[in-house]
Amino acid sequence: MYAPASFAALLFTFALTVTASAQPVTPALQGEAAGLAQEALQDELAYELVTSLTTEVGPRLAGTEAEARARAWAVARLRELGFSNVREEPFELPVWERGLEQASIVSPFPQPLVISALGGSAATGPEGITGEVVAFPSLAALEQADPAAVRGKIVFIDEVMTRTQDGSGYTVATAKRRQAAYVTQAKGGLAALIRSVGTSSHRFAHTGQMRRVTEVAEAEGVPAAALSAPDADQLQRILSGGESVRIHLLLTPEQRPAGKSANVIAEIPGRERPQEIVLVGAHIDSWDLGTGAVDDGAGVGIVVAAAKRVLDALPEGPRRTVRVVLFGAEEVGLVGAKAYASRHADALANHVIASESDFGAGRIWRFETRVRADRVDAAQALGAVVRQLGAAPGGNTATGGPDMKYLREAGVPVVGLKQNGWDYFDLHHTPNDTLDKIDPEDLAHNVAAWVSFIFLAANSGEYYR
Amino acid sequence: MYAPASFAALLFTFALTVTASAQPVTPALQGEAAGLAQEALQDELAYELVTSLTTEVGPRLAGTEAEARARAWAVARLRELGFSNVREEPFELPVWERGLEQASIVSPFPQPLVISALGGSAATGPEGITGEVVAFPSLAALEQADPAAVRGKIVFIDEVMTRTQDGSGYTVATAKRRQAAYVTQAKGGLAALIRSVGTSSHRFAHTGQMRRVTEVAEAEGVPAAALSAPDADQLQRILSGGESVRIHLLLTPEQRPAGKSANVIAEIPGRERPQEIVLVGAHIDSWDLGTGAVDDGAGVGIVVAAAKRVLDALPEGPRRTVRVVLFGAEEVGLVGAKAYASRHADALANHVIASESDFGAGRIWRFETRVRADRVDAAQALGAVVRQLGAAPGGNTATGGPDMKYLREAGVPVVGLKQNGWDYFDLHHTPNDTLDKIDPEDLAHNVAAWVSFIFLAANSGEYYR
Repeated sequence: MYAPASFAALLFTFALTVTASAQPVTPALQGEAAGLAQEALQDELAYELVTSLTTEVGPRLAGTEAEARARAWAVARLRELGFSNVREEPFELPVWERGLEQASIVSPFPQPLVISALGGSAATGPEGITGEVVAFPSLAALEQADPAAVRGKIVFIDEVMTRTQDGSGYTVATAKRRQAAYVTQAKGGLAALIRSVGTSSHRFAHTGQMRRVTEVAEAEGVPAAALSAPDADQLQRILSGGESVRIHLLLTPEQRPAGKSANVIAEIPGRERPQEIVLVGAHIDSWDLGTGAVDDGAGVGIVVAAAKRVLDALPEGPRRTVRVVLFGAEEVGLVGAKAYASRHADALANHVIASESDFGAGRIWRFETRVRADRVDAAQALGAVVRQLGAAPGGNTATGGPDMKYLREAGVPVVGLKQNGWDYFDLHHTPNDTLDKIDPEDLAHNVAAWVSFIFLAANSGEYYR
Repeated sequence: MYAPASFAALLFTFALTVTASAQPVTPALQGEAAGLAQEALQDELAYELVTSLTTEVGPRLAGTEAEARARAWAVARLRELGFSNVREEPFELPVWERGLEQASIVSPFPQPLVISALGGSAATGPEGITGEVVAFPSLAALEQADPAAVRGKIVFIDEVMTRTQDGSGYTVATAKRRQAAYVTQAKGGLAALIRSVGTSSHRFAHTGQMRRVTEVAEAEGVPAAALSAPDADQLQRILSGGESVRIHLLLTPEQRPAGKSANVIAEIPGRERPQEIVLVGAHIDSWDLGTGAVDDGAGVGIVVAAAKRVLDALPEGPRRTVRVVLFGAEEVGLVGAKAYASRHADALANHVIASESDFGAGRIWRFETRVRADRVDAAQALGAVVRQLGAAPGGNTATGGPDMKYLREAGVPVVGLKQNGWDYFDLHHTPNDTLDKIDPEDLAHNVAAWVSFIFLAANSGEYYR
């Protein structure tokens, strides 16, 4: 998303910028990168890593013991692969853990509903809540509603998410997930139900965070849950008959004020300019319902396998340092990303370029940038091989991935190796996010793109801000 | 399936057979049937009925209050549509109801598993059962195992079901579902897990009956559940590492010795030979996890809508009586089918031909028979319009559908309007069996086929045994 304040920050130049354009991506460098990419199309490491992570750890919710096991797994694997300076950078965060989650239509047509509590949801208490349903077609409609229509009722926001290749339907769709509980509370409602933020017609409810976990104390909100698409259809069908519909809802999540998480970091030290960082990320945590295969075991596999190929190709190291960051606590509000930006604030001027792989396991179809306006061509040169692999050049409004938010806002140039997300939100945040949904060839295709980008960024001498 | 005893029964002729061949399917009759089929391709009633049943009743497990609501719905709708002699024919049966169902890998890699108790499963007790897993590739391998290898362990049968158009993979695959609990018990095992009898890679466990509910008292068996395909994959992957795997299993179903069910019957009385019955069926009960849309709301919609078209086309009635039977308690072991055959034993000789729609909502691709060997051509004539709609002629080994078992065994000729079941077992017996999975045009195509069959069978004067 375009954010004027942070874009302005990009325009403030740092000392490094003065030497910009000195060493561009040469044809020779590009040829080497293309060679690495070609080999990487046979990559098996990424798939092995995501297999191992999703099998040997499985779900790994932020702040839990499972996420700690995921970090231990990552540290061991990164050391084994030969990376340097492998370490955890810890931080604290509030921890929300799911309890029971049950819902049923009490009247007029008694039957169970498939739901999932939203991350950060309040509990209903052990007896649950029963109330009449009042439906709205969107969050905006709820916001405009007379509180008298909401008071004492269970709100249902029945807004459909648009399926898109670039994921643009998601940002729109998450508004209701983020706000429903608070707007409902402000109007005196009992609880909030939303149609899942997702694109599948299978009977899975999609969880996801409400406000960032670090903001929850400000306004707890009413208990809130997502209905699977078939259940939202069912509820809408019954409501359309004009009868009053009563629902019983039981959610027993628990919130602990402080838990531990950490980012896991590994490096390939630069041989000429070790202080200059090319940062490639993914996130190690996942939602608790699935095993976090497409979100974001795939990203972990892709960036680690790609960096490993650079390490193997250049035993003396690339010119710059490649830093792999596996962020903790992404799902609950980019908590690891914020901790990283804060901890490394003084060094962000040395972060030459950054990107994250966190959009599943689909192939890359676009290479986009967010760099100084007159450095776009130079940054696009880092995607030369990615484009040979079939990607189109994108614009200069890349986000770089969710965990790049605070780096981007601090002026770090980012690129996006955009994956095809057409099917991503079929699985996203559901129990169905499991290993079998990943195509090993697509994963290797990603590794090929990433190895070329990392190699070029770490071996060119250019700057992008 | 070919069953020598029941096939022999077919060869015993009844009085009616003497007059066989008197009134064949004439071109004029076939033309009328084709006209009705043509109109039925625009049918909306079947979809309206399955919408109404799955929405206003939802899941309707055999012997429960929900199944009683489904019958009340059916009786009201059938009367409203103008059928005659609409009634319930009650019977009793033991009732099994699902409780909590949870499973998790305790070691080496702790994580939850998605399971579903098998119908008729014993309970684990409130504390659950924890044990080491011993895996077998098939039921046969378990049967051959040394009891010492099974004693005190949780059995896992990891056998994959073959996807087929005609459903032939199902019979093979259900052996483990039917027997695992008892064979495990006989060898001293603690519990039995099976890879779901299903063909989808989505994370749904497929429930289904073990032995018929009426046979359960004979041998209770150990607690038994199905794993979703991704969970079976996961367990197999962990086991393949060679480590000992321990699982915790909690199942709290309850079994009541006696509950009530019934078949719902409606008729179009015949105007010339009212004592001769053309029986068309579907089943009104469903598993408890989904809303019973493809299994068997679709069948209910198809046969009722098709019969209604015959009723409307022939206000004076067809020559023979058309009897629609919506069987109760099919899923738990054809209990309604047995009750019908027993109650109507003296009249089965007058059942001219019978068939059930219980294989989802896919289009019909084959018309098959099970009639006296020299009556095959006459019976295939009943499928003349079905074949015009795209079906191929099938052999003379039709089952006629699950609820036709006892009628078939008593010598009633049956035909099969075989639906394409390629995707049927993706949804079968899962929470994902919901209305959105039915294509209204495919459903109308079924109604077209069935109306032609019913019309020809009820207006010709031929016999098939």
